[in-house]
Amino acid sequence: MKDFSSLKTPAIARAGATLSEVATPALMLDLDAFESNLQFMASLARRHGVALRPHAKAHKSTMISRQQIALGAVGVCCQKLSEAYPFVRAGIDSIHISNEFVGSDKVAMAVELAGLIKLSVCVDHVAQVDAIGKAASAVGVTIIVMPEVDVGHGRCGVDSNEALAALVDRMAAYPGLRFGGLQAYNGGIQHLATWEQRRLEAARSADRVAQYIRFLEARGAACPVVSGAGTGTVEFDVASGVYTEMQPGSYIFLDGHYGSNEWAGDYTPKHGLFILSTIMSTAKQHKAVCDVGLKGVAVDSGLPRVRAGEYEDKLRYVSANDEHGILQVAADDMRDHLGNRVMLIPGHCDPTCNLYDQFVCFRGDVVEAIWDIDARGLSY
Amino acid sequence: MKDFSSLKTPAIARAGATLSEVATPALMLDLDAFESNLQFMASLARRHGVALRPHAKAHKSTMISRQQIALGAVGVCCQKLSEAYPFVRAGIDSIHISNEFVGSDKVAMAVELAGLIKLSVCVDHVAQVDAIGKAASAVGVTIIVMPEVDVGHGRCGVDSNEALAALVDRMAAYPGLRFGGLQAYNGGIQHLATWEQRRLEAARSADRVAQYIRFLEARGAACPVVSGAGTGTVEFDVASGVYTEMQPGSYIFLDGHYGSNEWAGDYTPKHGLFILSTIMSTAKQHKAVCDVGLKGVAVDSGLPRVRAGEYEDKLRYVSANDEHGILQVAADDMRDHLGNRVMLIPGHCDPTCNLYDQFVCFRGDVVEAIWDIDARGLSY
Repeated sequence: MKDFSSLKTPAIARAGATLSEVATPALMLDLDAFESNLQFMASLARRHGVALRPHAKAHKSTMISRQQIALGAVGVCCQKLSEAYPFVRAGIDSIHISNEFVGSDKVAMAVELAGLIKLSVCVDHVAQVDAIGKAASAVGVTIIVMPEVDVGHGRCGVDSNEALAALVDRMAAYPGLRFGGLQAYNGGIQHLATWEQRRLEAARSADRVAQYIRFLEARGAACPVVSGAGTGTVEFDVASGVYTEMQPGSYIFLDGHYGSNEWAGDYTPKHGLFILSTIMSTAKQHKAVCDVGLKGVAVDSGLPRVRAGEYEDKLRYVSANDEHGILQVAADDMRDHLGNRVMLIPGHCDPTCNLYDQFVCFRGDVVEAIWDIDARGLSY
Repeated sequence: MKDFSSLKTPAIARAGATLSEVATPALMLDLDAFESNLQFMASLARRHGVALRPHAKAHKSTMISRQQIALGAVGVCCQKLSEAYPFVRAGIDSIHISNEFVGSDKVAMAVELAGLIKLSVCVDHVAQVDAIGKAASAVGVTIIVMPEVDVGHGRCGVDSNEALAALVDRMAAYPGLRFGGLQAYNGGIQHLATWEQRRLEAARSADRVAQYIRFLEARGAACPVVSGAGTGTVEFDVASGVYTEMQPGSYIFLDGHYGSNEWAGDYTPKHGLFILSTIMSTAKQHKAVCDVGLKGVAVDSGLPRVRAGEYEDKLRYVSANDEHGILQVAADDMRDHLGNRVMLIPGHCDPTCNLYDQFVCFRGDVVEAIWDIDARGLSY
C-alpha cells in the first residue's frame, strides 16, 4: 500500500483570488461592512465614556479581537474557559468569562489563566465562590469575581438582594478573590422585533441593575464594573448610566436574526457575514440544491436567506439536510442554475462561525485575507 | 507584555481517567454499544453477500473507518471531496463521493484523489459529466462515475430513463471516465416511524432501482455496483436483491432521531453516542442550566434527551442557547443539581459530531481512548 500521509487538504481560498475561485461552502466576511460595524461600536463607546469589551464567542478569532482592541476595546469576553486560551496566546491580557462554571477541570483552567492575565469570572451560587476561592487562594492568584444578577432573562444569575449579598459576603473569606462588580446581561430582549420594545425592555433591565448597585452601595460595596449589553440593546444600555462596560458580539456581523430587528436612531449595523454556496444539482423542476446544509450553517434561528442581488427574488432556501440546502426556484425562472454561486445570510452568526475553521475576508470581488477561527470548538 | 504564545489549551480528557474527570461538554462514545453496532452491520453484510461501504460523513474519523474496514468494509463513502483527504492520508484506498459537485475547485480535488486511490463520484447532469470527464481525461486518471437515480427522495438524482441514458452516453465520450453503476439512496424514508412503513417504502425504492437497472441492461450497460441504503432501511435493502453495496453511517451511534424509529426483527442498534454535560447554574427554581448549548449539540432533529438512569425522569432539556442548555427540573425534585453531570442523547449525530474535535471513548466509568474527528469541518 502506498503512503499518502503527507497529502495536503486543499485550502478553501487564497488571498488575491476572486470570489469565483473560493471553494464552497465558505464563511465569507465582507470587510467593508465589518470595518464599518467595528468603527461604529468603538465610537459609540468613546462617545458615552463606557468601556467596550466585545464578546469573542461570536467570532472566536484572535485576528478580530486584535482589531477590536486596536480600536480601544479594554479586553474580550469569553463564554467558556477553554475558549480563552487562544486569546491569551495572542497577547490579550484582560478576559472576562461572562458565564458560570462548575467542576475541578474548569476551576483549574481559571487558576491557570489568572496566573497569566487579568481574569474575571461570574458566579450565581456560593458553591462556585467556594470552589474558585479555595483554588485561587491555595495557588496565590487573584481572580476577579462578578456575581451575575438576573435582569429579566430568567436563565443564570441571582434574582434577589439576599442571594447577591450571600455571594459578596462569601467572597470576602478568600484572599484569592476580589469583588469586581456585576455581570448583568439580558439575552432575552436582544431580538425583540421593534426598536421601541427593545428600548422599553432595556430601560426595565437597567432599572433592575440600578437597584442591585444601590443595594450593594448601601452595604458599603461599590461596583467597580457593571458589565452587560448585547447587539440588540447596546444603543440604549450605553446611555443608561448604569453600565460601565458593554459586551456586544454579533454587531460585527449582523446575522439574519438580528437583521430582522427594526433598527432606528443612528445605530444600523450592516450585514457582513455570508456563506458562499454553489448550486450542485438541478435535476428537479423548480428546485436547486446547493452545497450548504446543516454542517455549513446553523438553523436554530431560522434558515439562511439569499443576499440581496441577482438571485434574491428567484431562489429561496427552504430546507437543510446535512450537506444539502434545498432552494426553491421561482415559477417564472426557467434558468438552469447549476454551478451558480449564491451568497446566503446565516440565521445565527455565533453557531455558524463555530462550524468553520476560517473566515474568507473579501472586499468587492477579491479575497483580501484568510483569518483563522482559532477558538472554534473550544466549548469546555 | 509577556509572551504566552506557547500556552497549551488543556485537553478535554486523558485515557485512563474516570468520566468525572472529563471536561464538559464532551462528545462521548460508549465503546460497548459502538462495537456491538459495528459487528452487527459487518455480519449483516456478510450474511447477505453485499458489500459494506459505511458513510464517513456521520463520524468524520479515520480511527472509526479503520475499524470498519478491519471488519470487512470495502472502503468508505464521503459526502464532500475535501472530506476524503484525511481518509486518503489514513491509507483508505477506495472512496465513493456519494454526492454531486460542481466547480473547478471541486473537479481539481477529484482529479487529484483519483490519481491516488480508487475514486467514484456521482452525477445527475451532463454538465457535471463534461467537467469531470474533460479534467480526468486531460490528466490521464480514471474516475468511476455512478449516476444518481432518484428513488423517491426528490432531492438530487435523475428521475427518468431518458436523463439516465443521457448521462451514461455522455460518459462514453471521455477516456478518463468509467461507468461504475448507480447511486440510489432514499434519505426521505430513513426516519419513518414504524418498521412496517420503512419496509414498504424501502421495497418501493428497490422497485425503482430495479427498473433503472433493467433499463440500462436492455441498453447493454450492466451495473457493476448499485450503492445505497441508510441506517433506517438497511435491513430491508440488504435483502432486496438490487443493491450490491450499502452506505449506512449513523448505525454506529444511533442518535435520538433514529432512536425514535420502531425497531423490529433482529436489527436493533444501540445508543452509543452521548454528550456529557455539567449543570453550572441552579439559580432559578425548577430550572437547571447545563453547559451544552447550540455549539455542543445539533438541534435540527429535536433537542437532546437525558439518558436513561438517575436523571431521566427528573430533568428534561427544554431549550438551547449558544452555550447553555435549559433543563426543566421535575416539580417533586428538590435537589440542588449544581455540579451534577448529565449524559445527553443528541437528536442528530452527523452535525453533532461535526461540532467536536475528538471522541472521548469510554467503557463503563473509564475513558479508554481519545479519537480525533479528523475530517471535522471539511464540508467543501
